[in-house]
Amino acid sequence: MKRCDYEKMRQEALAYYERAHIVLSKEESSKIEVADFGLGRVEEIGLQILTYINTERVCAKEMVLMPHQACPEHMHVPSKNAKGKEETFRCRYGKVYLYTDDGGVSKREDATLSVFPDTTLTVFHETVLLPGEQFTIMPGTLHWFAAGSEGAVISEFSTRSTDETDVFSDSRIVRIPKIDD
Amino acid sequence: MKRCDYEKMRQEALAYYERAHIVLSKEESSKIEVADFGLGRVEEIGLQILTYINTERVCAKEMVLMPHQACPEHMHVPSKNAKGKEETFRCRYGKVYLYTDDGGVSKREDATLSVFPDTTLTVFHETVLLPGEQFTIMPGTLHWFAAGSEGAVISEFSTRSTDETDVFSDSRIVRIPKIDD
Repeated sequence: MKRCDYEKMRQEALAYYERAHIVLSKEESSKIEVADFGLGRVEEIGLQILTYINTERVCAKEMVLMPHQACPEHMHVPSKNAKGKEETFRCRYGKVYLYTDDGGVSKREDATLSVFPDTTLTVFHETVLLPGEQFTIMPGTLHWFAAGSEGAVISEFSTRSTDETDVFSDSRIVRIPKIDD
Repeated sequence: MKRCDYEKMRQEALAYYERAHIVLSKEESSKIEVADFGLGRVEEIGLQILTYINTERVCAKEMVLMPHQACPEHMHVPSKNAKGKEETFRCRYGKVYLYTDDGGVSKREDATLSVFPDTTLTVFHETVLLPGEQFTIMPGTLHWFAAGSEGAVISEFSTRSTDETDVFSDSRIVRIPKIDD
């Protein structure tokens, strides 16, 4: 991702936090992560992340999805003697379409999302989250999520986050962003 | 605590969540916990708590302090083969005066809180949290906290919460609220 693209997405994310009335410190505003997953189509497949805290035991993040932007399918697996990550997504603003295989039903035609991202997707059990609604994803659960036309702000409450160990369904994906100056 | 007092505090807490632009579901609004710590002075020593999630590994809460209301001094200790609770407080609205013994300095005269609650207090190393500011409290750390004149809304990100095992400095305290109809 080019530095100017990173900066553009970061600025747009700041506007979403403001719309959701989420106050960030100046330092936090400057360290928002823009993940393009190495696919070079960050506006379609990407995620903006502010990590509030990430210790050995607990992690909390505030994430932004732009309109129709999707976080691609992945799951959290055990690593270095630690169990896989358990996470709860709570919608704070906008609308989140969350897909898992929890329900046993995984037919693409059951999902109502208007635009499906061009990436490997295998689970389609849909949960729609509006502000004040939340969903807990246990370790080893394949999931992906996308915003509706207004974008979304999502709080994440979880165990320790080790993004570099996430297992993505799309083998082209590189989780840790590389920014070219 | 009388049912009518509980209901009054719950309604006031809802107004604070609204001021902080925090959206709750109808079910969540109905299950806000009002802790009076058994001291019968809930407006002075008390805490309003909404628990979003509390699993074996992760807990997230949204708490409200009324103006000058204080949560009394306590610490989180190991229980049932689990380490003590680790928690991060993030101020979302108002002003939080947080006291710990982290800094080694524990002189009451160093603290600027306008009203000290009438309960056993032994630590006075003050950290003031404004919206967007946060502080992490490790297990075994004595702490107490209070709101300024505008009240406060505080997000808590933590490991599993087992309130019944909290160790309070004031031996009169009973953590789990009892509501009389």
